Amino acid sequence: MIQVTLPDGSVKEFESGATPFDVANSISAGLARNVISAKYNNKTIETTTPLTEDGALVLFTWNDDEGKKAFWHSSAHILAQALEELYPGVKLTIGPAIDKGFYYDVDLGEKSLSENDFKQIEDKMLEIARGKHEFSMRSVSKADALAMYQEQENPYKVELIENLEDGSITFCDHDTFTDLCRGGHLPNTGFVKAVKLMSVAGAYWRGDENKPQLTRVYGISFPKQKDLKEYLELLEEAKKRDHRKLGKELQLFTFSQKVGQGLPLWLPKGAALRERLENFLKAAQKKAGYEMVVSPHIGQKELYVTSGHYAKYGEDSFQPITTPAEGEEFLLKPMNCPHHCEIYNAMQWSYRDLPKRYAEFGTVYRYEQSGELHGLTRVRGFTQDDAHIFCTPDQLDDEFMKVIDLVLYVFGSLGFENFTAQVSLRDPENKEKYIGTDENWAKAENAIINAAKAKGLNYVVETGEAAFYGPKLDFMVKDALGRSWQLGTIQVDYNLPERFELTYKGSDNEEHRPVMIHRAPFGSLERFVAILLEHTGGNFPLWLMPEQATVLTLSENYEDYAQKVLTLLENHGVRATIDDRGETMGRKIREAEMQKMPFMLIIGEKEANDGTVSVRKHGGEDLGTMTVAKFAELIDAEISKTLKKFEV
Amino acid sequence: MIQVTLPDGSVKEFESGATPFDVANSISAGLARNVISAKYNNKTIETTTPLTEDGALVLFTWNDDEGKKAFWHSSAHILAQALEELYPGVKLTIGPAIDKGFYYDVDLGEKSLSENDFKQIEDKMLEIARGKHEFSMRSVSKADALAMYQEQENPYKVELIENLEDGSITFCDHDTFTDLCRGGHLPNTGFVKAVKLMSVAGAYWRGDENKPQLTRVYGISFPKQKDLKEYLELLEEAKKRDHRKLGKELQLFTFSQKVGQGLPLWLPKGAALRERLENFLKAAQKKAGYEMVVSPHIGQKELYVTSGHYAKYGEDSFQPITTPAEGEEFLLKPMNCPHHCEIYNAMQWSYRDLPKRYAEFGTVYRYEQSGELHGLTRVRGFTQDDAHIFCTPDQLDDEFMKVIDLVLYVFGSLGFENFTAQVSLRDPENKEKYIGTDENWAKAENAIINAAKAKGLNYVVETGEAAFYGPKLDFMVKDALGRSWQLGTIQVDYNLPERFELTYKGSDNEEHRPVMIHRAPFGSLERFVAILLEHTGGNFPLWLMPEQATVLTLSENYEDYAQKVLTLLENHGVRATIDDRGETMGRKIREAEMQKMPFMLIIGEKEANDGTVSVRKHGGEDLGTMTVAKFAELIDAEISKTLKKFEV
Repeated sequence: MIQVTLPDGSVKEFESGATPFDVANSISAGLARNVISAKYNNKTIETTTPLTEDGALVLFTWNDDEGKKAFWHSSAHILAQALEELYPGVKLTIGPAIDKGFYYDVDLGEKSLSENDFKQIEDKMLEIARGKHEFSMRSVSKADALAMYQEQENPYKVELIENLEDGSITFCDHDTFTDLCRGGHLPNTGFVKAVKLMSVAGAYWRGDENKPQLTRVYGISFPKQKDLKEYLELLEEAKKRDHRKLGKELQLFTFSQKVGQGLPLWLPKGAALRERLENFLKAAQKKAGYEMVVSPHIGQKELYVTSGHYAKYGEDSFQPITTPAEGEEFLLKPMNCPHHCEIYNAMQWSYRDLPKRYAEFGTVYRYEQSGELHGLTRVRGFTQDDAHIFCTPDQLDDEFMKVIDLVLYVFGSLGFENFTAQVSLRDPENKEKYIGTDENWAKAENAIINAAKAKGLNYVVETGEAAFYGPKLDFMVKDALGRSWQLGTIQVDYNLPERFELTYKGSDNEEHRPVMIHRAPFGSLERFVAILLEHTGGNFPLWLMPEQATVLTLSENYEDYAQKVLTLLENHGVRATIDDRGETMGRKIREAEMQKMPFMLIIGEKEANDGTVSVRKHGGEDLGTMTVAKFAELIDAEISKTLKKFEV
Repeated sequence: MIQVTLPDGSVKEFESGATPFDVANSISAGLARNVISAKYNNKTIETTTPLTEDGALVLFTWNDDEGKKAFWHSSAHILAQALEELYPGVKLTIGPAIDKGFYYDVDLGEKSLSENDFKQIEDKMLEIARGKHEFSMRSVSKADALAMYQEQENPYKVELIENLEDGSITFCDHDTFTDLCRGGHLPNTGFVKAVKLMSVAGAYWRGDENKPQLTRVYGISFPKQKDLKEYLELLEEAKKRDHRKLGKELQLFTFSQKVGQGLPLWLPKGAALRERLENFLKAAQKKAGYEMVVSPHIGQKELYVTSGHYAKYGEDSFQPITTPAEGEEFLLKPMNCPHHCEIYNAMQWSYRDLPKRYAEFGTVYRYEQSGELHGLTRVRGFTQDDAHIFCTPDQLDDEFMKVIDLVLYVFGSLGFENFTAQVSLRDPENKEKYIGTDENWAKAENAIINAAKAKGLNYVVETGEAAFYGPKLDFMVKDALGRSWQLGTIQVDYNLPERFELTYKGSDNEEHRPVMIHRAPFGSLERFVAILLEHTGGNFPLWLMPEQATVLTLSENYEDYAQKVLTLLENHGVRATIDDRGETMGRKIREAEMQKMPFMLIIGEKEANDGTVSVRKHGGEDLGTMTVAKFAELIDAEISKTLKKFEV
């Protein structure tokens, strides 16, 4: 008999040789139907692998990342079999599961493969799947493994096997197909009910451009046809919401080859949007006792040597800027903290003056390789909604609570309802890796956990994930398409106060080191706008929209009245435009819809006579005819649904 | 007889040999008394030099820069004579007039000289002056000149003479003193009625640190004792108003050795001041149809090669920033125009879309040698209130008028009442030096002159002073101490539209080049704040003050009431603070005065009971007791005296 411990801590006894499937079956028939893969004593095994010693078992289904990985890894085997059958002589190389699906790199020799062939391959894969062939692992000697692939004249697998140790080599068989494989499969091919090949691309063997070029086939598979349909719809939606596409359509930002990659130029509508975001945060920060400061975008290299940033990032960054004077070297600032430390240092402080909260929309520059740049989410210059709080250790508790309040206010006002938090603590086994006293770490870690609890955050604690300079709290938001993004961060820092020799005079009349908190609710304005674009599809919260309403005239007879309406709207603080072109109303509405215009105010004979507007909401809802004043009230009411006043 | 033409164009006949003094005498006795120096046929001469040919004569008095130059140059001779008499064996080198006064560099051998010796030297100078010794020039041969200084063992003068051509060498004699000199003196030493030595410093011979160190004595002199007194008072006032001193006292900005020289850090009060200036201009610009954009602080080197800035400034600037990728080079942006051109280029425009007016508070970086840096007036990074207007040539007239309106609005709102303008046109004799067609130049130059006339500007026209890319209009303001500062500039540019291949589709359906206008009413926020500080001595216009009022409590009994008053003030939009320290009222008032606090609201028993405040104005005026609402009205009225709404 063996003792099997389950994730909930319960221990069950089984006869030696029982499989994960048996264990699942002993729990429930439903679990047995859905179990896809397993880990035993932290090692990936098959659901059919006999358990012969005591251990800890984790069972995975489609709902687990590990389960999906096994599902897609198994699907790669099915793809490989299909390719072998359809393209005899094809040479297999590697075929892993990836974040979304899987791929297989193959050498097709003289043949080639295009999207037109996908249907045939998918059909073949589904045919194999329907055979419900079991995956089974077996050990082979290095000699036998080499012999098999030498016979197939497959130099790729031979090269892979040559790098493996004898005794560690396993093959996986299913149906007529065999592949070199480390394991972690579905019970059988029948689990795969839906398959979609996504794309085909060239890829060099081992990623080395001096080696042969292979054909990479990307695919994805699902346990239900419905799942595939949903996935493809989501993909379609994500494409529509791609912030690069929307940014262009809504004329928010652009890039210029001449200015340089990864350096966004904000067009008027985008710049105004940014400014609204800044003003929104400024107003809340003012209430929360922050003070704005302004610092330059460069600093002497020495500044970053002092801060430690140069040692850490110097080589991979924008390189130092020299001047006609000998020995002078400056760096583009990669962060604002050293500058804010020097601002703190410009005066002398007593404990009664603290906390000092310095905020700046500080544009920083960090080098990214051109291949890694992506729209506004990966750029080389971006503006942080940065602030640094300098406080006494005893003030940490209170400050953390206040920062969380601010972050939650930001998320709420911008329609991010769905988020989690991660508390990163130091590894108590490796205290020497961290700077700061035990007492201060205890204070800071408690401050974070207390604040997270008090504010009712949905958080996880990760021990050992703290930065060397202090513990932190990160927020992850889920967007409308279910994707996770890391946004706001709050970090405690004992390091920079030390390096910049920051002090305050305590109540004991002695000099003390303040603690520093770094925080940025948006993170970066660029990235935040990108995420907001993809989250909302360009239908920003009303208070943030570039334009809130447009006045559409039924004919040129109403141009004067349109102008009057516009003036009234502006007096009510509504951002509005007029479309009095000689186009049909249908076309005007279509274009306004394209521009994500929240409200369209249609005016013709009746409205001009009555002094009203007919209000059509984005998407088509008819809100009827009303005065401009009434409409302004309606807009205010709509805005106040998301945008509340920040209360300290 | 000779014909002498005077500056007003009139021609007078004199006998050959008449002197400038004779000419002055023929005009008026007053002029003859005051004439200090002269130019004949554009060559500096003495007032006693006989005129022996026809020519154009300009006479200078103390009120002319040339007159002051002769006055101070002559004073340098008197200083040198005084030094020779007091420090026998002193070796003279050079002693020019400077912007304010004069100096003389001398080699004192073993001796030295300090501020304690100034009185004695000044007395000696005045004694010489009172002798009314005439200055008279004479030609000497190179051999004689060398002989004289060789005899005096003065290697400096010897070196100077060795570099002169024989036949061109003149000496100037007065009293017992002789100096190598090119001429341009007072009639006699008696004109100098007041003398003040300002400082003594070390200076290397010929500015070369490998050559002997000399003693430089700075001085200034005046035709009246009263002038000296006024000058010293002004100097005292300028010292008090030094923006570096005020900036520190008012906690507006600081510099950090670690961040780097010439890179200001704006402290909270300064950042808020800047933001108020920005918001003020933003509001006016919005009304005037500008759109804000945002661009990065770097650009590829290619961008500035295209714009021509690299060829012009590259070598003397911050050097290119390289990256880990080969061939990539970026530059800190020295101006925003190339970025705005690329923003214009991001879309296609029709003549109906123009003008486009892109504005940005763009921080630019320009290298200045460390010796040239000065507070906020000469920095290495500064923020321009920049905008670029892209328009058709026919729109220039209208756009220029509008920009002048905006500039005048800015000056008026900030208390600069006293300004002049300079229109810089191209040199019609050297058209090939300029880019752009004759037709376009005519349009642009007319646009500027018409606008300057229409707006009633006090302007001068300078032909040949245009930039190669277009004509311009610059504004010079006079500050409260009578000093002139160049502020706003408006420039037409035909060059960048060409270089960046900017186009719009005309009404003829053809592609055309837009014209570009660069304009910046403040110029740079840093420099503007510095000038404003020195102009106002820190007593900014009320709308701009960091704090507008402070509530001073007579004792701790009124803390609650003070808090209530503060809330009321904030609700009325008044920026206010409380001083409820246990200090005496006298001290609280003194400190508020130091901080340039515009209004002090004193509260005690009576005010707390009546719900009022006792209002004391900065400087001491008692405005009596009133409610907070009444006080807010008073503040609003005061603000609206300088700050009007901008009307388009």
